[in-house]
Amino acid sequence: MKLYEMASAPNPRRVRMFLAEKGLLDKVERIEIDLAKGENLSDDFSSKNPMKKVPVLELDDGSCISETTAICRYFEEQYPDSPSLLGDNANEKAIIEQWTRWIDFYLFTPIGMGFQHTSGYFKDRMNPIKEWGEDSIKAAIKFLDFLEQHLKDNEFIAYGRFTAADINAFCSVDFGKVVKLRVDDSRPHLKAWYEKIQARPSASV
Amino acid sequence: MKLYEMASAPNPRRVRMFLAEKGLLDKVERIEIDLAKGENLSDDFSSKNPMKKVPVLELDDGSCISETTAICRYFEEQYPDSPSLLGDNANEKAIIEQWTRWIDFYLFTPIGMGFQHTSGYFKDRMNPIKEWGEDSIKAAIKFLDFLEQHLKDNEFIAYGRFTAADINAFCSVDFGKVVKLRVDDSRPHLKAWYEKIQARPSASV
Repeated sequence: MKLYEMASAPNPRRVRMFLAEKGLLDKVERIEIDLAKGENLSDDFSSKNPMKKVPVLELDDGSCISETTAICRYFEEQYPDSPSLLGDNANEKAIIEQWTRWIDFYLFTPIGMGFQHTSGYFKDRMNPIKEWGEDSIKAAIKFLDFLEQHLKDNEFIAYGRFTAADINAFCSVDFGKVVKLRVDDSRPHLKAWYEKIQARPSASV
Repeated sequence: MKLYEMASAPNPRRVRMFLAEKGLLDKVERIEIDLAKGENLSDDFSSKNPMKKVPVLELDDGSCISETTAICRYFEEQYPDSPSLLGDNANEKAIIEQWTRWIDFYLFTPIGMGFQHTSGYFKDRMNPIKEWGEDSIKAAIKFLDFLEQHLKDNEFIAYGRFTAADINAFCSVDFGKVVKLRVDDSRPHLKAWYEKIQARPSASV
């Protein structure tokens, strides 16, 4: 199997961390796609993912799966016990999915919007709207405050144990650096949780 | 179980349609939350979903699940054979999730953004940015064109059969009405698929 990614991008990192935690990282050949050079815009890459985003998982039969959480779902279903990261029963699977969507919609996407609309990084490929970027960063800050409250009473995001929700939250919180949102003493519970996740070997792959 | 919803809103509709297709609609007591009146902003509702959005599923033990796809996941896992709508194996589950995320990120959310940022509907609760709303509507149109191409060669969104991906696409395409995006003869394959889904009893619940 091939995993098309950009090593420094946050969504591919979520997949790598997921695979590392499940002991499956050696199952994939990793292929670097340079987004800055627009390699994701080529016809070849677009045929793998019409949305032109990384990561993409290409299976041995040549078929492709896009979207971070869909790729993780594939590996979870193929290797449910190595260990499970998406939940062991209906309640857990639903709550972990709820958290991943909250993280995507209220933290990850706002950070990405904040970056794209205030940095000018992709200005030749899109229409940056500074006010929208600034509002998006404010939304991300609000969610960090919510996480701080949540982690006051919880050692991990869900069920008192490490799950994919922690991977998604950790990579998203770290992604905040691109809009100068850093984990510091102003949010001590978030910081303690962040440092605990950061110490896992999977955080460095 | 209680399902907190607003009957006219598109995300609750996705859950109702999913439940109707699985024959499970009578498992939930439906409770209307009036978003226009801000009933979702109350302390009571916020304790069920801190993101203050519908739908929310309250289980009999009082615990709550937010997010449309997470609620659907709960019912799929509890009742996998009634029939399955999220896929029968790792590949199918991943591809159906990929499609649902594409639909959410490239169609549903842009329509919602387009509506909120151009209509003034929630103007007392947010900062509408007209240019962002207009760009979002253009992004939604681009995805409708992509769907038109996809449905040229496919009777359903995935695997040649009705799945949750069709529910999510159908409710999102229909939601386009709020920004004057309507299904018409300019996209004949999308129209044929839309009319086929619309004829299902679940489209009217």
